[in-house]
Amino acid sequence: MKCYVVGLGPGAFSQMTPRAMQAIEESDVLAGYTVYVDLIKDHFPGKEVLSTPMKREVERCKLAVERAAAGSTVAMVCSGDAGVYGMAGLIYEVAQDYPPIEIEVIPGITAASAGAAVLGAPLIHDFAVISLSDLLTPWQRIEQRLALAAEGDFVICLYNPASKKRSDYLQKACDIVLRHRSAETVCGLVRNIGRAGEESSVLSLADLRETQVDMFTTVYIGNSQTCNLRGKMVTPRGYRID
Amino acid sequence: MKCYVVGLGPGAFSQMTPRAMQAIEESDVLAGYTVYVDLIKDHFPGKEVLSTPMKREVERCKLAVERAAAGSTVAMVCSGDAGVYGMAGLIYEVAQDYPPIEIEVIPGITAASAGAAVLGAPLIHDFAVISLSDLLTPWQRIEQRLALAAEGDFVICLYNPASKKRSDYLQKACDIVLRHRSAETVCGLVRNIGRAGEESSVLSLADLRETQVDMFTTVYIGNSQTCNLRGKMVTPRGYRID
Repeated sequence: MKCYVVGLGPGAFSQMTPRAMQAIEESDVLAGYTVYVDLIKDHFPGKEVLSTPMKREVERCKLAVERAAAGSTVAMVCSGDAGVYGMAGLIYEVAQDYPPIEIEVIPGITAASAGAAVLGAPLIHDFAVISLSDLLTPWQRIEQRLALAAEGDFVICLYNPASKKRSDYLQKACDIVLRHRSAETVCGLVRNIGRAGEESSVLSLADLRETQVDMFTTVYIGNSQTCNLRGKMVTPRGYRID
Repeated sequence: MKCYVVGLGPGAFSQMTPRAMQAIEESDVLAGYTVYVDLIKDHFPGKEVLSTPMKREVERCKLAVERAAAGSTVAMVCSGDAGVYGMAGLIYEVAQDYPPIEIEVIPGITAASAGAAVLGAPLIHDFAVISLSDLLTPWQRIEQRLALAAEGDFVICLYNPASKKRSDYLQKACDIVLRHRSAETVCGLVRNIGRAGEESSVLSLADLRETQVDMFTTVYIGNSQTCNLRGKMVTPRGYRID
C-alpha cells in the first residue's frame, strides 16, 4: 500500500543516501527505467523487478501504482532526484485514478548539484534549471524561458541539452543567451556525472556554442560575475574578501 | 593540503551521503558554522574543530584554507548542498590568495530538492531558485529576477524568504509574481526540512502573501500548471495519462 519514489543520486552508490537505501530494502517491488534498475538490482536481491524501457513512463508509473494499490510496497527508482524532471510528479498524477495509496518521495542529489561540484561552484547564486527537451514542452516556451533567464542574469543549468534528433538545440540556446551575455561568459559541461567516464570542461559561451553534446551531459552557463579560477567555474555570492 | 567542502544535506544523518561521511572521516579538521559543526562533531570524534558564528563566512573560509595550505586535510561543512548558496564558491575565491591546495566539493541534497519531496513534486518542470536575502545582492536585482521568472512561468523556489529585518520580503515577492500569475496558483512552504519540527503546507499564492515565514523556511510558487492533488503540490511534466 506504499509507493516510494526514490532518487538514486548521480550514479555511484557512494552518493545514494541511507534513506534511499532503506526505502529500497523495505520494498517488495523494484520499479523503474530498465537501465537504472539494472544498475542496482544485484545489490537488492530478492525483489520483484518491474522495469520498462525509455519513453514508457506512464505505463511504468501505472504498473507501480497498481502494485502498491494491490498491497505491495514498491520502490520506483530514478537517476538523480526523482523530484527534478523525474517520476515523482507522474506517480502522484497516475495515483489519482486509484484508491489512495501512501506515496513518499525520497530526494536524491540532482544532476545540477552533482555536476556543479565537479566544475567548481557555479550555482552559488540564483539559478534557473531548464530542460531543452521539446518532447513534452513546446520549443517556443523553452526559448522564452532561456531569454528571460538570460535577461535576469541567472546562472543557467541545462538538462537534456541534446539528443540524436536535437543536435543543434544547444547552439540555438547559446544564441539566445548571447543576446544578453558576453561571448566570454564562463560556462561548463559535465558528462556522465558520477559514473565511469565522467568528463568535464570549463569554456567560454562562444566555445560552448560550437560544442557537440549528448543526452548524458549537463550544461552550465555562468552569470555576468561567474569566473574561471584556476580552471574551476565559480560564481561569487558577493562577499568582500579583503 | 586538501580542503573538502561538504554538503550535509537537509539535517538528518539519514540524508547525508556515504561520500560526505567519508570525506569528514578522512579530515583532520572539521570547519564550519558553529550550529552545523555542533550538530555533527560528536559523530566524528578526534577532529580538531574550527567553527565561526554566522556572518563570519570569509574568516571561516580563510581559516579552513590556511589550515589546508599548512598541510592538514580540512572538511568545511555546510547544510544542504555546499554548492547552492554555500561555502564552495568562497573557498575557491579565498584560495586564490594562497599556494594551490586541492579543493573537492562533495554535493549534498539542497533544500530545493528536500523540501520538494516533502510537498509532493513541485520541481518536475523548469524552475528558478532565488534567494530573497539582500545582504549581498541589491533588492532591485532580486525584484527583477522574480519578475522575469514569473513571466517565464518557471516554478520558483525561494531561499532565505525572511529574517527579522526582512519580514515583508515574501509579501513583496508575491506581489511581483501576482502580476503574472493567478492568486489561485498552488504554492508550498516547508519549515525545518529534515529536522525536528518539520512542517509544511500547500496553499494558494493569495494565502502565501498573507503568511509570515522565517529563515528556516523554503518557499515554492507553482507554475500555471501546478496543481494540488489530494493535498500535495505537483507540477505536471506534460505526459498524457489516459
